[in-house]
Amino acid sequence: MLGRVKCAVAGFMGGIMAGGSSGGGCNPGSELPVKFPYMRPEFLGLSPDEIECSGDHTARPIVILRETRRLPWATGYAEVINAGKSALNEDQACCELVIARRRPMSYCPPSTPSKTPTAKRRNSLPNGEGLGLRLDHSALGEDSEGLVFHYWALFDGHAGWGAAVVASRLMQHHIACQLQAVIEILRNLSSLPPTVLGEEPDTNPYLQGNPPGPHRSLTRAASLRGASGAPGSPCNTPPPPRFYTEKKIQHESLVIGAIENAFKEMDAQIEREKQVFHITGGCTALTVVYLLGKLYVGNAGDSRAIIIRSNEIIPMSTEFTPESERQRLQFLGFMQPHLLGNEFTHLEFPRRVQRKEVGKRMLYRDFTMNGWAYKTIEEEDLKFPLIYGEGKKARVLATIGVTRGLGDHDLKVHDSNIYIKPFLSCCPEVKVYDLAQCEHGADDVLVMATDGLWDVLSNQEVAESVTTFLANCDPDDLHRYTMAAQDLVMRARGVLRDRGWRITNERLGSGDDISAFIIPLMYGNHQP
Amino acid sequence: MLGRVKCAVAGFMGGIMAGGSSGGGCNPGSELPVKFPYMRPEFLGLSPDEIECSGDHTARPIVILRETRRLPWATGYAEVINAGKSALNEDQACCELVIARRRPMSYCPPSTPSKTPTAKRRNSLPNGEGLGLRLDHSALGEDSEGLVFHYWALFDGHAGWGAAVVASRLMQHHIACQLQAVIEILRNLSSLPPTVLGEEPDTNPYLQGNPPGPHRSLTRAASLRGASGAPGSPCNTPPPPRFYTEKKIQHESLVIGAIENAFKEMDAQIEREKQVFHITGGCTALTVVYLLGKLYVGNAGDSRAIIIRSNEIIPMSTEFTPESERQRLQFLGFMQPHLLGNEFTHLEFPRRVQRKEVGKRMLYRDFTMNGWAYKTIEEEDLKFPLIYGEGKKARVLATIGVTRGLGDHDLKVHDSNIYIKPFLSCCPEVKVYDLAQCEHGADDVLVMATDGLWDVLSNQEVAESVTTFLANCDPDDLHRYTMAAQDLVMRARGVLRDRGWRITNERLGSGDDISAFIIPLMYGNHQP
Repeated sequence: MLGRVKCAVAGFMGGIMAGGSSGGGCNPGSELPVKFPYMRPEFLGLSPDEIECSGDHTARPIVILRETRRLPWATGYAEVINAGKSALNEDQACCELVIARRRPMSYCPPSTPSKTPTAKRRNSLPNGEGLGLRLDHSALGEDSEGLVFHYWALFDGHAGWGAAVVASRLMQHHIACQLQAVIEILRNLSSLPPTVLGEEPDTNPYLQGNPPGPHRSLTRAASLRGASGAPGSPCNTPPPPRFYTEKKIQHESLVIGAIENAFKEMDAQIEREKQVFHITGGCTALTVVYLLGKLYVGNAGDSRAIIIRSNEIIPMSTEFTPESERQRLQFLGFMQPHLLGNEFTHLEFPRRVQRKEVGKRMLYRDFTMNGWAYKTIEEEDLKFPLIYGEGKKARVLATIGVTRGLGDHDLKVHDSNIYIKPFLSCCPEVKVYDLAQCEHGADDVLVMATDGLWDVLSNQEVAESVTTFLANCDPDDLHRYTMAAQDLVMRARGVLRDRGWRITNERLGSGDDISAFIIPLMYGNHQP
Repeated sequence: MLGRVKCAVAGFMGGIMAGGSSGGGCNPGSELPVKFPYMRPEFLGLSPDEIECSGDHTARPIVILRETRRLPWATGYAEVINAGKSALNEDQACCELVIARRRPMSYCPPSTPSKTPTAKRRNSLPNGEGLGLRLDHSALGEDSEGLVFHYWALFDGHAGWGAAVVASRLMQHHIACQLQAVIEILRNLSSLPPTVLGEEPDTNPYLQGNPPGPHRSLTRAASLRGASGAPGSPCNTPPPPRFYTEKKIQHESLVIGAIENAFKEMDAQIEREKQVFHITGGCTALTVVYLLGKLYVGNAGDSRAIIIRSNEIIPMSTEFTPESERQRLQFLGFMQPHLLGNEFTHLEFPRRVQRKEVGKRMLYRDFTMNGWAYKTIEEEDLKFPLIYGEGKKARVLATIGVTRGLGDHDLKVHDSNIYIKPFLSCCPEVKVYDLAQCEHGADDVLVMATDGLWDVLSNQEVAESVTTFLANCDPDDLHRYTMAAQDLVMRARGVLRDRGWRITNERLGSGDDISAFIIPLMYGNHQP
């Protein structure tokens, strides 16, 4: 245990001193400098001594916000380090007020839609500076020069803390940058976003029934439902009606698109900067953006956000794991078998196949299936399954237990040249919650936390403990959400008893890093 | 209008006469014989004259079951032809009691899991005979020689009636055939399905902590959560615990797998038999199997099944359309750009891009996105979008409005060599409903219908009209579900007024073929 702590301190100091080792504890770093030193969330304002104390794997102190500090909306936050599975706490968090200012578009790197499977990005943004925006922590509401949004984020690192630290420092800039391109449009709620920028709506010939287009595929637009316009359809079909429709895109969709592209740009930046900086590992990302009355929850990974409102639980994210994304991954392995390096099979089996079972019939599952069937085992099936294990032990390529996130660009299957990254996605799922849909009381909150919390507590247990805790607080005490977060993390960590961390009903507590925000919703429109 | 009816009769007679033209009305058929002649559902027992009358696009008579006939569980059924969009009613239906009998496995073509993207099936089953099963319409419950299941199915054809007729005649055989391989296992509820057939459970070395396996990837099983077992992880990680887990597969999963593979085999059979028979078009497939106390609803297409229980609506299927499957299709187009034939782009735009807009910024959506963002239009973007249109007008490759189903193997984009089939899936989503979970009253039903119904009536409207109708019937009248189905189809078709079909509130009625089953759930365990 002591060794572990020593290692943690060494790793931490190495990070703080910068320039030297920066990745996962004692792992000898590369010769490259670190992008950012190891840190705990900036808003905690911890001194180096305090950071060291927070890293004690034996005592596992729960770190909360000082009473002298306050986050926007009186947000509560608490965190605890793991029980020894990694030298440092690889969770990171961020909470800020961000202003995306109007700037010429050229300042902001445009997101690049996928052109071909091998296309490379051309933008360069080596340091995240020059993103064409300024941060302002004091402003509130709509800014005359731009757009203000609230931002909360959790990043759960693995195989090193590098990617999580970089993401926690820069993700909000990428979101601001993507939003910047649409500031004018978002502020003008009186008309829908234009399809083309700088074009008068009535110059669209589609609305005048005058179809343009250089391709013969113009007639493509005119086919009927099903495939009745295709060869073999009845001759007496009436002439297909022409429809030159134009999809109406809502403002909300632009914010969703901005967050989606920000995740992609963040991941691309990590990839680029790994050329010049030592950035270890990867991380999940869970972000909450509050903009113009709505909460946008973006999730890539296995963290989770729920809203607790009155006695109702509203899930605001879904987890992306080898089990939940099995079919996507198997399909990719089937379509691009070279990614499996002749060592893995895209088929799933209930366990490893043994050589002596060749010729027998065994249960299997293909990418098209949710059920199981028997197949005759062949030589090919002796390969290791692309997806293997159950629940928290499920792995992609025997390596990673989470299927979306940032970083991991050089992660390979142990002792092989098989890259994991093609199977990972950096794309978040974004869910929207309109705060104006109802009045929120002081006990209505959004809880977001890394998987360390949800591994041991159900949504229901979290909702019950937060609701019960808040009900016993003074409603005017702005520190109550911090105390509730502390209580929640404590419940998931448990207490040290019989050489193990125990929670209620003698269940095992979480040995993972745990980080949690509790965000009161009533302050969305009424600042405390 | 008269021309249409003439054409319908000609098409129908051509079908009945067999040997000649068999596809979609006047479209000149190939020289190949038809697999099955055109028909209406066998259980309706219609005479050729009655079939002709049912095909009147002007009167659109609603066809129901004769009072002298009764379907299992007193199931109600009604159908109506379209208002002229195709010569014949391209919906087909089937309702049967099926027995899957114990037979040597070799009689049944095993389903072939996908090996490589180009792998071809090797099984041959040219006529659906020799499937190793017999049908028995009188037996009920568990049969001493096999397993009895109830079966209801709807197939909504497009671009000809061939695939729908073939599927309505043979799908139940494929399901029986897949179930046949697991009859013994399904009947033995006292132990879980074995991972390997013919092996004693305790010979599995995984359960003895003695890991076998010929590959060095054996160690793959031992890595930890996240990627902490990968290079770059902290040196002080405790040795990863070994887990030689074996997934426990439930009986239910075998039935789901059997239905999934039956759809695949049905589609493969249509593909094979197109070599020797004239089988036109494609069809959606919605099947319900009642086996050992549970309903299994398999859906590939845009038909829909809901359960109405007390005042609750339980959706039992989801629709697969260009909109609901946009991301899957865009991803495929991105991964395999040759499938787009240099004529289509996998990106989505709100409307066609015009040449003069090259260089401007326009809204777009990539396969990773649910939101929208702006991109600078390039020459490449002038191609036609893979997914185009909204709602019922949405199309894949400007051709087809539904993305799952059977057949369509030779369907191409008009005036091109671009095949549609690679973008279509024949794989169903299977949902399970346990009838034993509660007592069902006489008004608790499963409603399954083709999209003609759901295009004009919401789940809520369907539930209200069925519930209201049944409440006004004599509960002992076994004809009540047929009457309710008739009423439902009538509500969706409407009445002819002002040269159009109108339903309540002056809305337009459905001009599509409509077919609906109403299945009472109380008879699951108590036969009427």
